[in-house]
Amino acid sequence: MPSGRKGQVPHGTNLLDAARLLGVELESICGGRQTCGKCQIVVEEGRFPKHAITSSTDHLSPIDSRETAYREKNHMDAGRRLACACEVLGDLLITVPEESQARKQIIAKAATDRVIDVQPAVRQIYVESTPATLEDHRGDWERLQAAVAEQWGLKNLTVDALVLPTLQPALRDRKSSSEEGMYCVTLTLWQDSEVLRVQPGYAEGAYGLAVDVGSTTVVMHLCDLRTGAVLATEATMNPQVRYGEDLMSRVSYAMMEPQGAARLHHVIVAALNDLAKKAAAKAGIAASDIMDVVLAGNTVMHHILLGIDPVELGGAPFALAIDAPVDLKARDLGLKLGTACRVHVLPCIAGHVGADNVAVQLAEAPHRQDETMLIVDVGTNAEIVLGDRRQVLCASSPTGPAFEGAQITHGQRAAPGAIERVRVDPQTLAPRFKVIGHDEWIEPGTTPTVPESARATGICGSGIIEAVVEMYLAGIIDSDGRFNENAAGRSSRVRFDGRKGEYVLADAAQTATGQPIVVNQNDVRAIQLAKAALYAGVKLLMAERRRSSPDGGSTQVEDRLQTVDRIVLAGAFGSYIDPRHAMILGMIPDCDLSRVVAVGNAAGDGARIALLNREQRAEAARIARSVIHVQTAVATDFQNQFVGAIAIPHATDPFPHLEGQLPARPTGQAARRSQRRRQPQPL
Amino acid sequence: MPSGRKGQVPHGTNLLDAARLLGVELESICGGRQTCGKCQIVVEEGRFPKHAITSSTDHLSPIDSRETAYREKNHMDAGRRLACACEVLGDLLITVPEESQARKQIIAKAATDRVIDVQPAVRQIYVESTPATLEDHRGDWERLQAAVAEQWGLKNLTVDALVLPTLQPALRDRKSSSEEGMYCVTLTLWQDSEVLRVQPGYAEGAYGLAVDVGSTTVVMHLCDLRTGAVLATEATMNPQVRYGEDLMSRVSYAMMEPQGAARLHHVIVAALNDLAKKAAAKAGIAASDIMDVVLAGNTVMHHILLGIDPVELGGAPFALAIDAPVDLKARDLGLKLGTACRVHVLPCIAGHVGADNVAVQLAEAPHRQDETMLIVDVGTNAEIVLGDRRQVLCASSPTGPAFEGAQITHGQRAAPGAIERVRVDPQTLAPRFKVIGHDEWIEPGTTPTVPESARATGICGSGIIEAVVEMYLAGIIDSDGRFNENAAGRSSRVRFDGRKGEYVLADAAQTATGQPIVVNQNDVRAIQLAKAALYAGVKLLMAERRRSSPDGGSTQVEDRLQTVDRIVLAGAFGSYIDPRHAMILGMIPDCDLSRVVAVGNAAGDGARIALLNREQRAEAARIARSVIHVQTAVATDFQNQFVGAIAIPHATDPFPHLEGQLPARPTGQAARRSQRRRQPQPL
Repeated sequence: MPSGRKGQVPHGTNLLDAARLLGVELESICGGRQTCGKCQIVVEEGRFPKHAITSSTDHLSPIDSRETAYREKNHMDAGRRLACACEVLGDLLITVPEESQARKQIIAKAATDRVIDVQPAVRQIYVESTPATLEDHRGDWERLQAAVAEQWGLKNLTVDALVLPTLQPALRDRKSSSEEGMYCVTLTLWQDSEVLRVQPGYAEGAYGLAVDVGSTTVVMHLCDLRTGAVLATEATMNPQVRYGEDLMSRVSYAMMEPQGAARLHHVIVAALNDLAKKAAAKAGIAASDIMDVVLAGNTVMHHILLGIDPVELGGAPFALAIDAPVDLKARDLGLKLGTACRVHVLPCIAGHVGADNVAVQLAEAPHRQDETMLIVDVGTNAEIVLGDRRQVLCASSPTGPAFEGAQITHGQRAAPGAIERVRVDPQTLAPRFKVIGHDEWIEPGTTPTVPESARATGICGSGIIEAVVEMYLAGIIDSDGRFNENAAGRSSRVRFDGRKGEYVLADAAQTATGQPIVVNQNDVRAIQLAKAALYAGVKLLMAERRRSSPDGGSTQVEDRLQTVDRIVLAGAFGSYIDPRHAMILGMIPDCDLSRVVAVGNAAGDGARIALLNREQRAEAARIARSVIHVQTAVATDFQNQFVGAIAIPHATDPFPHLEGQLPARPTGQAARRSQRRRQPQPL
Repeated sequence: MPSGRKGQVPHGTNLLDAARLLGVELESICGGRQTCGKCQIVVEEGRFPKHAITSSTDHLSPIDSRETAYREKNHMDAGRRLACACEVLGDLLITVPEESQARKQIIAKAATDRVIDVQPAVRQIYVESTPATLEDHRGDWERLQAAVAEQWGLKNLTVDALVLPTLQPALRDRKSSSEEGMYCVTLTLWQDSEVLRVQPGYAEGAYGLAVDVGSTTVVMHLCDLRTGAVLATEATMNPQVRYGEDLMSRVSYAMMEPQGAARLHHVIVAALNDLAKKAAAKAGIAASDIMDVVLAGNTVMHHILLGIDPVELGGAPFALAIDAPVDLKARDLGLKLGTACRVHVLPCIAGHVGADNVAVQLAEAPHRQDETMLIVDVGTNAEIVLGDRRQVLCASSPTGPAFEGAQITHGQRAAPGAIERVRVDPQTLAPRFKVIGHDEWIEPGTTPTVPESARATGICGSGIIEAVVEMYLAGIIDSDGRFNENAAGRSSRVRFDGRKGEYVLADAAQTATGQPIVVNQNDVRAIQLAKAALYAGVKLLMAERRRSSPDGGSTQVEDRLQTVDRIVLAGAFGSYIDPRHAMILGMIPDCDLSRVVAVGNAAGDGARIALLNREQRAEAARIARSVIHVQTAVATDFQNQFVGAIAIPHATDPFPHLEGQLPARPTGQAARRSQRRRQPQPL
């Protein structure tokens, strides 16, 4: 139990071996030497008709001297036994406590209930080697290799050249010799092929970092590679921000400044070193105990991390230096972690679809779905992924940085003080809003009670999206995005000069600057253009999917290919975007709202999955190779789709799931005016 | 010609392809693109009955625009053609000039006429890649990989992580674009699997270092990896000498001093960096053009080079940290060469038989001989190798450092001023000698004409060996090594106080110190002990060979196993030791003197062979694995053999090849005295 596996083994079989024979993976670091205590089990007593057996602790060999020795040194519940010290003498029903199960499964996050099978690339094994003698002239390394082959079945091990010097002292360490005897060591292995660390005696603790390097924010999870547990999570602003707010300005910096690319590389590496040090301190380990790192990031971050000048990514044809995953040593990047610590950089897909998107796909797994999944990952550009287990397509859509709060009059990065949520009373047109760093909503007219530190400094991405949608729902702006002349008469917050309007979201007294924060016609237009680009990208993928679908043709399939069953919103909106607002704005196509989820930093979760499961690294490489990339810049359909998508939510596409939630469609003059305006606009 | 291969190919076959089809390996870096000019051939005109063909330049397609373009830019003899630009149109007799032959063979050195097949681990290839387009979203690396697979048939290439950043600039280099077009690069490959360098356009020049790190001297050969030519040879004293004259004192230093091993590592790495810089300057290249290094050295040097504390080598059981060859990056050792430059450290055999001995075996190849070869490599200990293609055995014999001039009253390292050769007139007992750094022999009584700089400072290894032998031949000492009382009467140079004697080799006026340089009883004794240990080691191997010979048993074989056919003297004697003196001293067993050769720094040659031929690296690993190591310290026979070998040349072993060259054996009292003295003596 709990796997339910059963079978017969010869009388006297070691219980750890018996478990393996039945396909039950019990944890074991020491390889059955009563050292690690990881293979503890419980014998259920009684008659179990379902299993047709009578189980009893008597059916297991009694506690012998080896197990006694372990019990004397370590706490162990009375009812438990070390499987590796037991022999099967009769029928048994065994329960394997969760902590004794190998290949632990952990839940990555609540939003999508992703289960991670803990099978990391880096693991530890305990090995008992033998001393050198005058007759045995092999090297200590060769003797150790032979012991590993015999005790663990692993052949052709190599050892990192800088770790080799630690081998002899570890084998002959006398401090640990009182416990396990000399010539016993714990090896930290990468991919069961390379020795990254040699520690004297029995040792526990191999740690890894999963890092998502965003343009704005760097998030690092420090994980225990054995249990999969996140021991610490640290985040910091990407220090490259000082060389350019958005990606393209950093590419320009790399192009224009001598040594610019090198500087961008060095500051991000320094930031990673700082984060690792902090995370290690929080977890009570040393940074040198970190043995594995998985890095995700957009293509520009990916290149800069690897020391590659991102200049080619700054212009067509946006050539990646490399798309495949890169395995290297942390020291070669300047990371100050374990001497032989490995780094796995996730693969990229195309010039605008980077390792962060691969990480998102790893976390959300569209390629494993029966239903059609749409993933929208919004940053400076939006990466869009669409598909199911038959086929996955992706594209990067030139939304520009409006969704990140840039190009917005009072826009700002998602940081304390930014308005991140907005509600507008449809009757009074009075706004309520929430700022980052302050838990309570700011109600209209509550200015005197708002603490100074909670005063708004600007509007971040999620805030501007909600503001525009709420303005539309309240009738302040029309479906075509223009300010409604009538609204100016309903509230003094709406100002309209006959050509352009603006809406006062925060009064002067509610802001940190003492100036009101407004949303004006240009801001609405910027959001419209961004969402139209995003929507057009989605439509383009849908069209491409119909064209290239391996089972297209039948009407039933055609219909299915025109709709999405599930939408995942990921990325740097500042906070979780509200699915309803996203749909009303027309960022995303129609879908059952209960099946639209915002997952926040899915790239970080994907990096964590790749850190904790070596097979998922291969999976990521397969994703990057097999996904069909559609280049929006050369797609003839894109401009048409874009024009059609400027209206809120869309000029012609139906949104049945928003039934009853939208204001009446404009008719007459407004509709005609809106038609006239549907012309391509430069981004 | 000159291979003599012939065959038929379809009309119109490209001549480079035709050569390959016939198994004639023509050099080509550019892969048939009329860029490198390495595949030049000459068409022989006329009727060739032996080959039954009539050959004519008309039977080759005429010079086309591609070859014309090459000829315009490069000098090319009128009679030559680029094979890659020619098609076979009829019968042809083709001569491949030596420089166009791939797998060049070079002569390693005159002494043993070893031929090196130039097939290095590192080579360059020229590749024409394709530009990125909006439709082709692969990375530049993936496109290049595809081009390499197509143009060179090499798959699964990897690229050094620190070289990756140079890829895009090289592919888009505009300076080289006028010549070969953009997206054409020259790759430097290691083992046809890893890219170590990317250079724009067509480039030539990959260089390697073969290094023998001796306890006293470090010798470095800088080689052109394409031609095999030695471009520069540099040597320096091992700077570790300041931390200990001999190996054991350095091991002590590493044990006693905190950070001692690290310091020893750093000073030798710094010395290698200096040497590489000098060698590169001499060859007119940059140190960063060096892409491969092969390191040989005794076990202590081997460990220190790899950053391994040599402490375990300082006492029984003399455990090596590793015996297998080690492949790593030069940068991980602190070597300042090409960014991705590789290092191959040759394997070791046992605690006292190191990578230098493997290099010697690679150079002298006892395992490839039909006859029995004995190799004696003298340093602080003597490594002895004995065998033939059936079986090779080796041992380290505890000769102590006397052969290096240590433990000798006026002994010194082989350096300018050291007496390296000695002759003693058997009548007058007057000595002639040669000092290192001065070409002429110093005759007795020539003191006033000797330039001050040529005055003797001491006696090095080869000098003391010759001195002892000449003293024996002149009757100054007897076969048992004792000073002959009668000799004192024959010359004032021989002093004898009744118990101990001494011989004045250099008069006070012939020395730099103004003190006479003498050889005394202790010196003779030290040399006797050293040579006895060496000889006992040889006998031990012979006995072990008889015991373990796969085809032992028959009398004929038994006889063969008791003699050696060929003796190779290698190592740090200071200068080449004279075979006759070595045999008279009884260092080596009886052998035809014409088949005893001194080969000097054979380890350096072995390193060069491994540098220039990748298969020889595998051969070295096979040698290290398959050689039978005999541990003298535990061999019961060793002490007996040692005692028997103290006499000059030996108490009982016959030396038929010295017939007539030795003084009459002592008889009567001297013989009896000598018998009494043949007792074990501590070393």
